[in-house]
Amino acid sequence: MFPELVIATSNEGKYKEFCEIIHASCENFADRIIFAPEISRLIVEESGHSYAENSLLKARAWSQKSGLPCIADDSGLEVDALDGAPGIFSARTAREKGLSESEWLLSRLDGVENRKARFTAALCLCVPEKFTLITEGYCYGKISTIARGSNGFGYDPVFLPDGYGKTFAELPGTVKNNISHRADAFRKISLLLK
Amino acid sequence: MFPELVIATSNEGKYKEFCEIIHASCENFADRIIFAPEISRLIVEESGHSYAENSLLKARAWSQKSGLPCIADDSGLEVDALDGAPGIFSARTAREKGLSESEWLLSRLDGVENRKARFTAALCLCVPEKFTLITEGYCYGKISTIARGSNGFGYDPVFLPDGYGKTFAELPGTVKNNISHRADAFRKISLLLK
Repeated sequence: MFPELVIATSNEGKYKEFCEIIHASCENFADRIIFAPEISRLIVEESGHSYAENSLLKARAWSQKSGLPCIADDSGLEVDALDGAPGIFSARTAREKGLSESEWLLSRLDGVENRKARFTAALCLCVPEKFTLITEGYCYGKISTIARGSNGFGYDPVFLPDGYGKTFAELPGTVKNNISHRADAFRKISLLLK
Repeated sequence: MFPELVIATSNEGKYKEFCEIIHASCENFADRIIFAPEISRLIVEESGHSYAENSLLKARAWSQKSGLPCIADDSGLEVDALDGAPGIFSARTAREKGLSESEWLLSRLDGVENRKARFTAALCLCVPEKFTLITEGYCYGKISTIARGSNGFGYDPVFLPDGYGKTFAELPGTVKNNISHRADAFRKISLLLK
């Protein structure tokens, strides 16, 4: 579909996750998926008030810099008992306290019974001169009482997606990348472009 | 394609323009195109740094409020001799000086030889739970030396689209709505969704 596609991230783990998601749900989406961390010197302020806005800011900036189609994401964890927090502040909240995401969240939910949570991802595909497409994807689950597993990043060690009995960080990448909020959002993009 | 579609504007002129554009380029795009000016009590701050961002803010807010697919635009005039100004500030710039758009622009270009300009529109279609699609369209032309015509709004009386010898405000709506920046952006949306 696209000869070249840039993943707007300087995080190699996230880049690999995107490659797996893309290959799993749409074989011929891109002939070549590009990791271009040097573009991240370009500082994109995530000043939006929604996942969609933040993903748009990133995808536009990276595609303007590279001249190529770019895909960017913005994601967050919404915890019922915290009225949807940390939400779009998911990456910043724990960091500001000097804690890992898992540590911060487990301490906030100490003794709390309702542990329902949802991961949300907005994916933005920006194709220069053509269009910009944004979708949102979800993954529903619960927050565990201890951190488990070493895969993934962020809140993965404390997020138990419904129906698996394991945290995102315990599940093999192939499973996580089939059921995750990012996979859900990407499937919506690829279905639309088919 | 959509049983119902809301045009995110409280300006009836703009609503009618959208209806014409949509019917002209994609007959079955929407069974019913809705004008819902009451939703504009919802104040959407156009705080974005690009047409695309502003159109996204509007379309998301209106579709969240209505629960229906919404289309919003943000547009501006980029004048070569003013280094691309007024651009995304097109609506505000003249208003802040207490002038009509045409008066403000003609005074700024008094005696200026290079009168090239381009209208740009970003259109954002937000379909709740499904996707958000943004396209940009363009119309190239020149700034006249006097304001002429009474159709349209904003800078229309001083914008001469290339090849017509008349301002946007002199051209019949059917012509303007075939060649305008909004029509160009809308065609890109309808082509993608076909």
